[in-house]
Amino acid sequence: MPTTAADGSAPGPGGPTPRPAGPVTLQQVADLAGVSPATASRALHGSTGSRVVGEQLREKVLAAARELRYVSNAPAQALARSTTSLVGVVVHDVADPYFAAISAGAMGVAREHGLLVMLAATFRSPELELDYLARLRAQRARAVILSGSGFADRSYTSRLAAEVESYRADGGHVVTIGPHGIDTDSVNPANRAGAALAVRHLHGLGHRRFGVVSGPRSLTGVRDRLDGARRQLRSLDIALPPANIVDGGFARDEARGATRALFSRAPDVTAVVVLNDVMAAGVLAALRDDLGLRVPEQVSVVGFDDLPFAADLHPALTTVRLPLTEIGAQAMEMILTGPTIAPRAVAVDGELVVRGSTAHVRR
Amino acid sequence: MPTTAADGSAPGPGGPTPRPAGPVTLQQVADLAGVSPATASRALHGSTGSRVVGEQLREKVLAAARELRYVSNAPAQALARSTTSLVGVVVHDVADPYFAAISAGAMGVAREHGLLVMLAATFRSPELELDYLARLRAQRARAVILSGSGFADRSYTSRLAAEVESYRADGGHVVTIGPHGIDTDSVNPANRAGAALAVRHLHGLGHRRFGVVSGPRSLTGVRDRLDGARRQLRSLDIALPPANIVDGGFARDEARGATRALFSRAPDVTAVVVLNDVMAAGVLAALRDDLGLRVPEQVSVVGFDDLPFAADLHPALTTVRLPLTEIGAQAMEMILTGPTIAPRAVAVDGELVVRGSTAHVRR
Repeated sequence: MPTTAADGSAPGPGGPTPRPAGPVTLQQVADLAGVSPATASRALHGSTGSRVVGEQLREKVLAAARELRYVSNAPAQALARSTTSLVGVVVHDVADPYFAAISAGAMGVAREHGLLVMLAATFRSPELELDYLARLRAQRARAVILSGSGFADRSYTSRLAAEVESYRADGGHVVTIGPHGIDTDSVNPANRAGAALAVRHLHGLGHRRFGVVSGPRSLTGVRDRLDGARRQLRSLDIALPPANIVDGGFARDEARGATRALFSRAPDVTAVVVLNDVMAAGVLAALRDDLGLRVPEQVSVVGFDDLPFAADLHPALTTVRLPLTEIGAQAMEMILTGPTIAPRAVAVDGELVVRGSTAHVRR
Repeated sequence: MPTTAADGSAPGPGGPTPRPAGPVTLQQVADLAGVSPATASRALHGSTGSRVVGEQLREKVLAAARELRYVSNAPAQALARSTTSLVGVVVHDVADPYFAAISAGAMGVAREHGLLVMLAATFRSPELELDYLARLRAQRARAVILSGSGFADRSYTSRLAAEVESYRADGGHVVTIGPHGIDTDSVNPANRAGAALAVRHLHGLGHRRFGVVSGPRSLTGVRDRLDGARRQLRSLDIALPPANIVDGGFARDEARGATRALFSRAPDVTAVVVLNDVMAAGVLAALRDDLGLRVPEQVSVVGFDDLPFAADLHPALTTVRLPLTEIGAQAMEMILTGPTIAPRAVAVDGELVVRGSTAHVRR
């Protein structure tokens, strides 16, 4: 990529066309308007001191800036102000509709308030998450939403805590979705209670033989959902043998394979709790197309999240609904109100949505 | 939000704990390492001149930077270099899986090359697209991918062309997905040919009465798809009355309503071409749940894009597949190779994927 003259370099020619290569400088705008660079800066960026620029002079400078297509230099201004209108949203996977819904909620609120959102994806790598946080901090982003689940990894958590503390010392603000084991504002979906809701629904339909399609257990959100299901089963005196828990990797096709493995080990399972809807699509495909088992006549399936496609699956998916768009919006609203002295934790309930994939057990 | 000391302010205390409020400065790192700020900068950022920092001295500076949790000041460095490792990806709607797939492809390539991706959503507003482009330019992003379709609006197109030209003069690089009527590198999905493919498939199955569920006609991509379907129908001597074209707004629920309207006006339609898969989910729901029409026995449906959920719809959706992840990856690769003298245009073919939603017409 061609290098360009740094801002504030030698003045350009008097006329705007042809423009020299490189960013238009404040000096060029000042030259064209026939004022000093200091006056041009005050006219463009507002007065920082007591000297106010007259309306006529201001118009002249703005006209020159328009003619030269001058873009005020954001890095220079960020340096001066040590803050920007930028908010970072860090997700695990941009192709996962769970994060798309949360991001859309956050972006909707940001748009209303003129904030620029930078969305970054970590590919579920704790290293990349820390790297992005550091880079957003270096970009002087005013706040960051960590929307992916935390990682069950002490070394990561302590490095995250240090990074967040440094960012906060710079005036930054971090909001997490779900607890991350650090001292920040958070919006916390009911992962444990939601999974318990799924179990109670299936138990109420008479199911006693359960399987669970889990996600990566390195994620705290997955651990919480699994823990919620397990505790509820235990309190109902239902066994959940370790062989009945399979890992679907939070991916449709991986979950499809995991479901085949589950039923080859435990063919008597009649109720499957799936820890997200993306995997539930794969579970339904496995039952229907690979195993020839009818849903809900022979096997009932409950998902988690209520992603937009859940109602369009075959059969339509019974699932634990999380208000994902609202979760993203709430996180952005916490940013708008700014950090408080004590971190805030907002709890968000899940809700069971009963559709066609669950029915009374048949013996 | 609390203000912080600007970078380059007074040196901090000698010891790292307790840290003063405000960003850690290069001066503080230099003080702790016992070197000059110039040496610290060379050690941290690589030598820009002929003077190389010895390995031992470099280790000392890096250790000091680690201890103080120094983050190199991105705005200051961007100023100095007039370029950053930042690439902007501008989409219409982050919750649309079409953009999620393209973004994931672009981000995958960016990750391999250590580039930071800033994803911004325009909510399909031409104004917001221009605004984001200007702000990314001001942030000294090295390149921007405009992944949403262009807008059929001359005033927008000429303003976009001016903005892109200014950005290019600054050393920036713009790649568009689909033609935008401006002189940039582009990756162009076969919108016209893909829609023609859908029509020929349905015609080959004996269908003669067609309906089209379209998207917002302000988008050039929608116009191209609609035009491709129309031309193919015309060349097959099949009529497509204007009443048989309805607008589903690129949204599932809007498409569901539009399908009801289509069949109340034209109940004899046996083949529906839907201009994206998101809307096809709504079309199938309308036919099945609202109109009691069996797919594919009574009505055949073809979608466009082949989004991840298409195979899980009921019935599984026949659709025109675009390799969206590859499209995003190709756009990012054009950025890596840098701009060429003449703009490049890469054509990407669509491919018909036949599933359960299409069958021979029955009389």
